[in-house]
Amino acid sequence: MEVYKNNQILSSLNNDQELSHQSKHILLELYKCDYEKLNDESFLRCTLNRAAKLANATVLNLISNKFEPQGVTAIALLSESHISIHTWPESNYSAVDIFTCGQNMMPELASQYLIESLNSEEYSLRVIDRNPPAEVIKQMRTVV
Amino acid sequence: MEVYKNNQILSSLNNDQELSHQSKHILLELYKCDYEKLNDESFLRCTLNRAAKLANATVLNLISNKFEPQGVTAIALLSESHISIHTWPESNYSAVDIFTCGQNMMPELASQYLIESLNSEEYSLRVIDRNPPAEVIKQMRTVV
Repeated sequence: MEVYKNNQILSSLNNDQELSHQSKHILLELYKCDYEKLNDESFLRCTLNRAAKLANATVLNLISNKFEPQGVTAIALLSESHISIHTWPESNYSAVDIFTCGQNMMPELASQYLIESLNSEEYSLRVIDRNPPAEVIKQMRTVV
Repeated sequence: MEVYKNNQILSSLNNDQELSHQSKHILLELYKCDYEKLNDESFLRCTLNRAAKLANATVLNLISNKFEPQGVTAIALLSESHISIHTWPESNYSAVDIFTCGQNMMPELASQYLIESLNSEEYSLRVIDRNPPAEVIKQMRTVV
């Protein structure tokens, strides 16, 4: 697994050919993040919401949980699938996943925003193709 | 990507050495599922809840959304991370992810239960190691 410095985000994303695939799952490991931000449930909810909007996604619901003695999970249910973040402030680490299915979402923008917002000094980003039947990625959904 | 028939579930899981890793992300593609089940929001909420419990996980929150003309997303926020399911009944397809971090959860049992509950005739299951700092997987969390 390759680990990048924060300032490598743009080049690593631009070079990743898999981003053109229409159903993808991004797994993002964020290291050396800011402790306070990783332990701030309200901040993380806002950050996840903003990341989703930057990615051109529609947030339908957003839930979170604060753990003791530290740590937060926040998950956004999107019209286009979901984004989650799980944080371990004591290790300055957070694990993000962004699952998108559709032709309009730009998860790379959400990834970049999360890396920068959490002051992550090192990260790894993996883009994994999901494998729906061909017709799935052409379908647009309507919210009830 | 290997696609298995439903009755291959036990052998494929037992042969996967990566399941011993303590922080893993399972990506499960379920094909040829039952249309009615994939479009039944209430059924899917119950199924996700049951899958989490079989995996020895603690469900802290569970949200879902019904799409029009069909399709459901359900996501369970777990003490141990999350499980999500996104369904496209018109294609008899659903995409599941199970992210676990900790030493006590058994996501393979959740996977098997979901495959069987949705009458999936074919599936693919990928186990991807997440890469937290070493101390993260030893930590147990307490719910506020």
